[in-house]
Amino acid sequence: MNFTIGIDIGGTNTAIGIAAENGEIMVRTCIPTTGERTAREYVDRLAGIVAELSDRHGLKDKISGIGIGAPAANGESGMIEGATNLPWPSPIPLRALMEEKTGLPVFLTNDANAAALGEMTYGCARKMHDFIFITLGTGVGAGIVCDGRLLSGVRGLAGELGHIIIDPHSSRQCACGRKGCLQTYCSASGIVRTALNILESDARESSLREIRADRLTSRNIGDAAVAGDDIARRALGETGRTLGFACAQFAAFTSPEAIILFGGPMQAGDLIMSPLKESFRENTLFLHKDTVKILRSSLPEADAAILGAAALPLMAKSIDLE
Amino acid sequence: MNFTIGIDIGGTNTAIGIAAENGEIMVRTCIPTTGERTAREYVDRLAGIVAELSDRHGLKDKISGIGIGAPAANGESGMIEGATNLPWPSPIPLRALMEEKTGLPVFLTNDANAAALGEMTYGCARKMHDFIFITLGTGVGAGIVCDGRLLSGVRGLAGELGHIIIDPHSSRQCACGRKGCLQTYCSASGIVRTALNILESDARESSLREIRADRLTSRNIGDAAVAGDDIARRALGETGRTLGFACAQFAAFTSPEAIILFGGPMQAGDLIMSPLKESFRENTLFLHKDTVKILRSSLPEADAAILGAAALPLMAKSIDLE
Repeated sequence: MNFTIGIDIGGTNTAIGIAAENGEIMVRTCIPTTGERTAREYVDRLAGIVAELSDRHGLKDKISGIGIGAPAANGESGMIEGATNLPWPSPIPLRALMEEKTGLPVFLTNDANAAALGEMTYGCARKMHDFIFITLGTGVGAGIVCDGRLLSGVRGLAGELGHIIIDPHSSRQCACGRKGCLQTYCSASGIVRTALNILESDARESSLREIRADRLTSRNIGDAAVAGDDIARRALGETGRTLGFACAQFAAFTSPEAIILFGGPMQAGDLIMSPLKESFRENTLFLHKDTVKILRSSLPEADAAILGAAALPLMAKSIDLE
Repeated sequence: MNFTIGIDIGGTNTAIGIAAENGEIMVRTCIPTTGERTAREYVDRLAGIVAELSDRHGLKDKISGIGIGAPAANGESGMIEGATNLPWPSPIPLRALMEEKTGLPVFLTNDANAAALGEMTYGCARKMHDFIFITLGTGVGAGIVCDGRLLSGVRGLAGELGHIIIDPHSSRQCACGRKGCLQTYCSASGIVRTALNILESDARESSLREIRADRLTSRNIGDAAVAGDDIARRALGETGRTLGFACAQFAAFTSPEAIILFGGPMQAGDLIMSPLKESFRENTLFLHKDTVKILRSSLPEADAAILGAAALPLMAKSIDLE
């Protein structure tokens, strides 16, 4: 049997795991991302952990490659370019450094693309050639697979769907400097903004009124919605409707078989999925109305990032990752 | 030297030409699309013309294939499916019929995709691997090339960018049944709608006021703008700004090297291109601001459809057209 290493580099933590081809994670560990002074020292530490984990579990000769998912990672150049949440000077030649240290082939892509490939390898996109994978988290990210290939584009920047402006009249300021980006509505903080807006306009009672505005989180809102809170339900409903509208436009772009949604807010289940699907049907071109499936990711939330990265060496054989 | 046949099937006319590899059209002709009673009789006539043209110009053994651009054409199945402007029952197995009649390999795609490949083969997208080609005409169509490949998607429906809703609050009804689609603003009739709106709100004199509303065309408006008419210039300016906003969102999708615009309205030159570029810069994600080129197609308007179709057999070797 063949195994791959999956490494997910976040701004705070780096998760490392060894995955079997069937998606089972044999072993996993986690280190702080920013503990080392230089990128080279960080890579030394990562390579040491990879060697140690492989040895300890008798998998040393069975590892076929390493996949790394990281924000601002460019799969073509093998570099991390302009990552605002890593402490080292950019660009970081991560692929070259890791290959030198481990002697294994290393594949790199941004975190949303890695998750899309994870879904294609281990999740509900198996056997699909055309799908759009959307992650809802701190931001909104996406990986687009069209005609069996992950779209990369110039400088590997394809799929920045969190920064599609879905309403040119919106007053919601985005971190990118513009207004009305999808992620000002459907990221974790976007959901909080929607809830605050409803708390202002809708006079009904709500447990959310007992929480300081700067402590309100999308998780609070999800929990309150599940417990039956009307305002929280309305916030999730509006989030679902906005996301459905956006997905309706995305479908016209690449004509996907499915749009797959991933992330914490999707745990609210039908409270977000029903309005999402309804809004998708209302707002999509008739050609896509009854053909595009709207699905929740089937990957376990905790393992998705490692699995996505671990899928990279497997996909590189069959998909054009470069 | 190698030659290909390009056939552009429009609702009214079918244009047929023989193109050299350098983009020179050696000979061309035109027949009414709807003169025959059945699709089979129409194909018989087309095949007859192809044989006759090739013979007459001594190119019979030098033709390597036939490319066909047609609305609602599906490159994968080789069928025309649900074309509302052709008189024969759908689906029409055009590729199979033509191959049977001519003995040549036949390639089929929709008209906007064909034009995109024409630009890639003979025009300003030569050597580009990532670009979005947008045609402004009766509707707004697009062909998207990403990572060197024309996007097809499920059922060949990728690139319906004329039906991206760019303003969810818009009252402009689209033929598709929804409101606010890009083509309600930037197609020929969309430009007329914008002019009518300005004629209502802007009290300045205009030569357009002398034309009955139902006789106003985008050409009238273009001509008046070139002649210095303020209202007409404002209409083209707003069209450019709307298109620039849309292109700014499209760039986030596939991260193109360039967005290339084609069609009659682009003949207004800087009157439409300047506001388009300005609006693109204002509305695009900072990552794309100074990197994505906004270009006018370099193909001659009259030949572009034939050249686009003629490019199909050439591209089929290097691109994944199926």
